[in-house]
Amino acid sequence: MSEVVTKSKLAKQAAQTIANLTTEQKNAALLLMADALVTEQQAIIEANVIDLQRGKDNGISTSLLDRLALNEKRIAAMAEGLRQIVELPDPIGDTLEQFDRPNGLRIQKIRVPLGVIGIIYEARPNVTVDAAGLCLKTGNAVVLRGGSSALSSNEKIVEVLHGALKRSDIPVDALQLILSPDRSSVDEMLKLNGLIDVLIPRGGHSLIQIVVHNASVPVIETGAGICHTFVDESADLEMAIRIAVNAKAQRPSVCNSMETLLVHEAFASRHLAAIADAFQSANVELRGDDRARHAVSSMKEASAQDWATEYGDYILNVKVVDNLDEAIAHIRQYGTMHSECIVTEDASHAERFLQEIDAAAVYHNASTRFTDGFEFGFGAEIGISTQKLHARGPMGLPALTSTKYRIYGSGQIRE
Amino acid sequence: MSEVVTKSKLAKQAAQTIANLTTEQKNAALLLMADALVTEQQAIIEANVIDLQRGKDNGISTSLLDRLALNEKRIAAMAEGLRQIVELPDPIGDTLEQFDRPNGLRIQKIRVPLGVIGIIYEARPNVTVDAAGLCLKTGNAVVLRGGSSALSSNEKIVEVLHGALKRSDIPVDALQLILSPDRSSVDEMLKLNGLIDVLIPRGGHSLIQIVVHNASVPVIETGAGICHTFVDESADLEMAIRIAVNAKAQRPSVCNSMETLLVHEAFASRHLAAIADAFQSANVELRGDDRARHAVSSMKEASAQDWATEYGDYILNVKVVDNLDEAIAHIRQYGTMHSECIVTEDASHAERFLQEIDAAAVYHNASTRFTDGFEFGFGAEIGISTQKLHARGPMGLPALTSTKYRIYGSGQIRE
Repeated sequence: MSEVVTKSKLAKQAAQTIANLTTEQKNAALLLMADALVTEQQAIIEANVIDLQRGKDNGISTSLLDRLALNEKRIAAMAEGLRQIVELPDPIGDTLEQFDRPNGLRIQKIRVPLGVIGIIYEARPNVTVDAAGLCLKTGNAVVLRGGSSALSSNEKIVEVLHGALKRSDIPVDALQLILSPDRSSVDEMLKLNGLIDVLIPRGGHSLIQIVVHNASVPVIETGAGICHTFVDESADLEMAIRIAVNAKAQRPSVCNSMETLLVHEAFASRHLAAIADAFQSANVELRGDDRARHAVSSMKEASAQDWATEYGDYILNVKVVDNLDEAIAHIRQYGTMHSECIVTEDASHAERFLQEIDAAAVYHNASTRFTDGFEFGFGAEIGISTQKLHARGPMGLPALTSTKYRIYGSGQIRE
Repeated sequence: MSEVVTKSKLAKQAAQTIANLTTEQKNAALLLMADALVTEQQAIIEANVIDLQRGKDNGISTSLLDRLALNEKRIAAMAEGLRQIVELPDPIGDTLEQFDRPNGLRIQKIRVPLGVIGIIYEARPNVTVDAAGLCLKTGNAVVLRGGSSALSSNEKIVEVLHGALKRSDIPVDALQLILSPDRSSVDEMLKLNGLIDVLIPRGGHSLIQIVVHNASVPVIETGAGICHTFVDESADLEMAIRIAVNAKAQRPSVCNSMETLLVHEAFASRHLAAIADAFQSANVELRGDDRARHAVSSMKEASAQDWATEYGDYILNVKVVDNLDEAIAHIRQYGTMHSECIVTEDASHAERFLQEIDAAAVYHNASTRFTDGFEFGFGAEIGISTQKLHARGPMGLPALTSTKYRIYGSGQIRE
């Protein structure tokens, strides 16, 4: 039996135990895990040095090396993340609905764990801790398959977490790490129906597409964000600039940052120069359509491909539109339905935008950067779902659960 | 562009319109559809005759011919099904959560349609009407791909429904039927990410497995049911027999019927003969393990494969178990986690069973045959989900929805 199958079977077995633990038992284990990370930080850092050295030898980029690197501060943050998960309410066992049928049957809909969650991710070793914490808190077993560049770090982290689990009520087998660096171990996970209940890929576009297009296990797709801000004719100029610059430049690398600014033509004719100045002050390169470049001649020309590009960088497309209808049509054509914003003082335009744009998060007069589990008050998140099935938008703990119906009878049969 | 792509694009376009229609507009269309089916029943029956004749020429089975056949009574039932959908509450637009953040953002979680739903099914033409009604009521566009054996019937039904939609506010393009009988049209639908949001296969095991294992579009799996009833030591004999016989024999062909009866050894030693008599009176063939056959020598021997078989027929496996633990272990090994029942007078055993068995529906003292949208009071259902993601168990209208977050701000940006 392969490593993936062996470990997934152990996870499935452990899932039956952890599903029935109390919140107190799970929280106690999470606190032990947090403490162990801090206590054994030196060993983790030493393992991380091996990954960093191999990364340098292999010539990986500075930004990848930065994502990979662990130090005392980052390990403390990982431990703090686990402690924050302890504070979150445990959704397992919640009664979501209860009703009685005319024949006397009492039916309850109860939150239960998903079972075994497979997480496929890339270089960041903090995902190992985050994902383990979120899955275990929700009574799920987890099979982790991190990037090979972080293998030593991940192996040591999981060893430390296993040490903590041994002193807790959570079975050690509920947390599995796949050590094989071969792509074939990913392929195997994708097809493991019956052993893995759900796959959540975390990482770049290419990883996510491989999982979405090849998995037969149900997948929650996360990640891609081509987000827009539409500045309407009636927008407040100062607010429009503040929101748009924040949406683009506060952290351009993340999925909820803006890639394209749409500006009503009447507003653009008065204010596009001021808007462009604000972005230039924020070191953002602007690429415009003909009308935008007519107003601000310093802009580069946006190519057909640019409207469909997630830059993740200090680059912004700017398009002047006739009206709300054209803005909605553009977003429907190019948006990934992640986070979309309208800045307007016209309440009816705001309502139309929020109704007609079918995105995970639609904003009136606020930056798209708020699409985030912490900002929504959910606490830590396992990702931001960009699909419509099961969960959409920031995924808090309830996104890691399923339900079951409990039916209480007194001998009822179907006629 | 292929038929599948062309029609799915039209459906996606129409989805943007139907998502924003009112309940009244959608209900008016459903009533027009119901009326049209009755008014034009003669044309539908004539088209059905073509399918039936082709089926006979191709030598398809009597039971398949029966599923395929339409008459005035069956068409009236299809129309009545649409009228019942009109009566169901429309989940679209419901506010599921609303909360304010410390920074003043107001966040609402709203039910929205999934978008475009693809339904892949087999011979029953009534699915064409059911699926169209359920999807349109929930503001979704639908791409139907029925079995080629029902093609003439489905084509005429959709023509009739399109005629009704033309007199309504629902765009005709919201209802698409794929006419190509080639398997390649199914393959194409499975990979149509971006145009089809969700696929729901309805039919036999093989169809469902093809969809689950080959789709990159998210799938809701339905169908397979290896369901158990465990008769505990303290069970009431009369109740146990009533529930078990109902679970097996009331309609053996459906997924929520029982395939294996587990009996506590103390109960079996006293009552297995009486139980066997009851099943023999219901024309059910019994296949037992050694202990069951020791008590009732007329039973055939159950093979290793039998415990993992969904008979869908008047055949039942019988196994004598030591206790509740062995019953739970057997169900975990062989169950498809659809519907599982314990018959017991011991409340603590009932609670353990309902807690520890992780199935879509877990029953205490009631027949597994109740796992059904109508029986749960949900009204018509699109199927019974046997996966844990998105929906589990009978899927009423809310299972055909997604959510979005609407966020109202006053200029908030992320620090």
